[in-house]
Amino acid sequence: RSLLLLPGDGIGPEVMRQVRRYIDWMARKRGIEFTVEEGLVGGAAIDAQGVPLTDATLEKAKAADAVLFGAVGGPKWDGLGFDMRPEAGLLRLRKELDLFANLRPAKVFDALVDASSLKPDIVRGLDVMIVRELTGGIYFGEPRGIEDLGNGQRRGVNTQVYTTAEIHRVARIAFELARKRGNKVCSVEKGNVMESGLLWRQEVTALHRAEYGDVELSHMLADACSMQLVRNPGQFDVIVTDNLFGDMLSDEAAMLTGSIGMLPSASLGAPDADGKRRALYEPVHGSAPDIAGRDMANPIAMLLSLGMALRWSFDLHTEADMLEQAVQNVLRTGMRTSDIMQPGMARCSTSVMADTILRELD
Amino acid sequence: RSLLLLPGDGIGPEVMRQVRRYIDWMARKRGIEFTVEEGLVGGAAIDAQGVPLTDATLEKAKAADAVLFGAVGGPKWDGLGFDMRPEAGLLRLRKELDLFANLRPAKVFDALVDASSLKPDIVRGLDVMIVRELTGGIYFGEPRGIEDLGNGQRRGVNTQVYTTAEIHRVARIAFELARKRGNKVCSVEKGNVMESGLLWRQEVTALHRAEYGDVELSHMLADACSMQLVRNPGQFDVIVTDNLFGDMLSDEAAMLTGSIGMLPSASLGAPDADGKRRALYEPVHGSAPDIAGRDMANPIAMLLSLGMALRWSFDLHTEADMLEQAVQNVLRTGMRTSDIMQPGMARCSTSVMADTILRELD
Ligand SMILES: CC(C)[C@H](C(=O)O)[C@@H](O)C(=O)O
Ligand SMILES: CC(C)[C@H](C(=O)O)[C@@H](O)C(=O)O
Repeated sequence: RSLLLLPGDGIGPEVMRQVRRYIDWMARKRGIEFTVEEGLVGGAAIDAQGVPLTDATLEKAKAADAVLFGAVGGPKWDGLGFDMRPEAGLLRLRKELDLFANLRPAKVFDALVDASSLKPDIVRGLDVMIVRELTGGIYFGEPRGIEDLGNGQRRGVNTQVYTTAEIHRVARIAFELARKRGNKVCSVEKGNVMESGLLWRQEVTALHRAEYGDVELSHMLADACSMQLVRNPGQFDVIVTDNLFGDMLSDEAAMLTGSIGMLPSASLGAPDADGKRRALYEPVHGSAPDIAGRDMANPIAMLLSLGMALRWSFDLHTEADMLEQAVQNVLRTGMRTSDIMQPGMARCSTSVMADTILRELD
Repeated sequence: RSLLLLPGDGIGPEVMRQVRRYIDWMARKRGIEFTVEEGLVGGAAIDAQGVPLTDATLEKAKAADAVLFGAVGGPKWDGLGFDMRPEAGLLRLRKELDLFANLRPAKVFDALVDASSLKPDIVRGLDVMIVRELTGGIYFGEPRGIEDLGNGQRRGVNTQVYTTAEIHRVARIAFELARKRGNKVCSVEKGNVMESGLLWRQEVTALHRAEYGDVELSHMLADACSMQLVRNPGQFDVIVTDNLFGDMLSDEAAMLTGSIGMLPSASLGAPDADGKRRALYEPVHGSAPDIAGRDMANPIAMLLSLGMALRWSFDLHTEADMLEQAVQNVLRTGMRTSDIMQPGMARCSTSVMADTILRELD
């Protein structure tokens, strides 16, 4: 079992440190061993190696059973060229590992219902899974670039492209997931305005008819979906959508939970001959440079990202369940990092939160 | 003073009827006369004239001082070809009248604070203006279309294009508006991933430096903005963004208010030699086919759209203020259409709501 850790920038390293402690605990207490390597990505890689992701690190990522990714970016690297910014390291990983399906659960923890800016009645028990296409669409389409037209005029271009095969493979993930959950998929696009969205709708519909007729399928326009997530998020089970809509809708859904410091994500590739998928796991929160290095960050999203790895890459479902249960239990005791602090609760640091979760696991 | 009314489909005609009554009231009670014409658009035009907008109606729209638009679309016209669907009528109007700036206020009415799915503390007093670019970007960029690749594979393409001139003209509107409001503009794009977004950011920054240094300017990524609208919408004054992000963010912001049946919008073109702008005013709610023809729809968004026309196209600020005040007063009495019904309030029909507002104006 091999893991590549890419802590990255900002609070990435300090939350990744807690993952290391959990991995040690697994070896010591459960006899489950991982071969762990570590590499640089994002600003940290730019500073030390001149690029946001070296070829050598990329090769390690390809070789590992799973990659754990912290976060990238920070003011220090703002204003660098397009391909030299921290984000480019993440985008390269996604593309080169062909991680086409981004699973972004938006789940409200019972103990944190009041942390949401939405009314408790609207978000209690919320459990939506957004499946975002991650290697296509306007993120990667050509032609792209900025052109000088003379006379002080410039022109910026990006291209949204989707093919039948790209749509089918991500929709398949959504349908399979739905079967293990609420059995409902909502496919989201702007097919009333964009032909690529119309194709999306048609291809999802065709795949559904051919292979997933047992799953309930609905379609929604992206603007309507951004409304409905606010009005009545409980109506959704699995949402499947393209790269750009998925970027916005998954962040919106994450914020509904009131605690993005709690949310993990998984990015999956196609299964190989043995059924194994390339995979990268990453917390939804960013690098949060304002609180970096202060032992203040919430380690839960990073730990739960490892939990998703246990489930998806290592088939360690019991261990994943135990970890999630330990997190719930600790939250129930009133322990809170700053980001989820509420009146009457006990504020704690990154390391104390992780200590307590590990103790709970014992 | 000339007005073209395009009621369209679904609840469009019944809310437009209330506008007619208000126009009559203006003539009778305030001596302010409008020359009113009416035309077909959307599904109604498809049924009667074979296209979602005829050239003749387009010419009338060009000739009018302002267009009032109801809503288009409904299940009856689903599945028509791309250029033959009801929406195509609206898109053609926007493009041919060159209505490049879509003003979408998201305002919470005091009497309706509890209608929001967000906590009252988060939305009380909310007043955000979203300025959405409306004639460019991925809505209109070429190449576009669906291509057959053989082997059962197809490819859908759309193109996002923005030029310096397109960005400047809409940003200018945002800066001018901000000066009359909270003096803050937040410009939103995905410049970390899309070159067209990077150009957007650079050009807004350049224009700001050259001409609007007195306005506070910030930049935000579109995914972060979709989060921040949920977390803390009160931080925003004016948001300026592209056509596609604006579509989603303005709908999300509208839903924060809990009452999209209340929200008007304006779409403005460039000023001509006399400083007059082409303009189209339209409620944010759609055609709502499920409640059409039942005298249930909320006429307030449509009436307030006329209110925006009074302000922007006819310089009738006193009349616009009066209309808005009358709406507030009527809400305060507890009168509610179904969409904003709350316990303890009095449910009323479309026409009774309009009656009451007209009586309040007297
Ligand atoms: C960092 C950035 C490139 C990335 C994206 O836009 O995909 C992020 O927002 C995300 O959602 O993972
Ligand atoms: C009807 C549709 C074409 C339109 C859009 O996408 O612009 C609508 O959603 C809007 O926001 O006015």
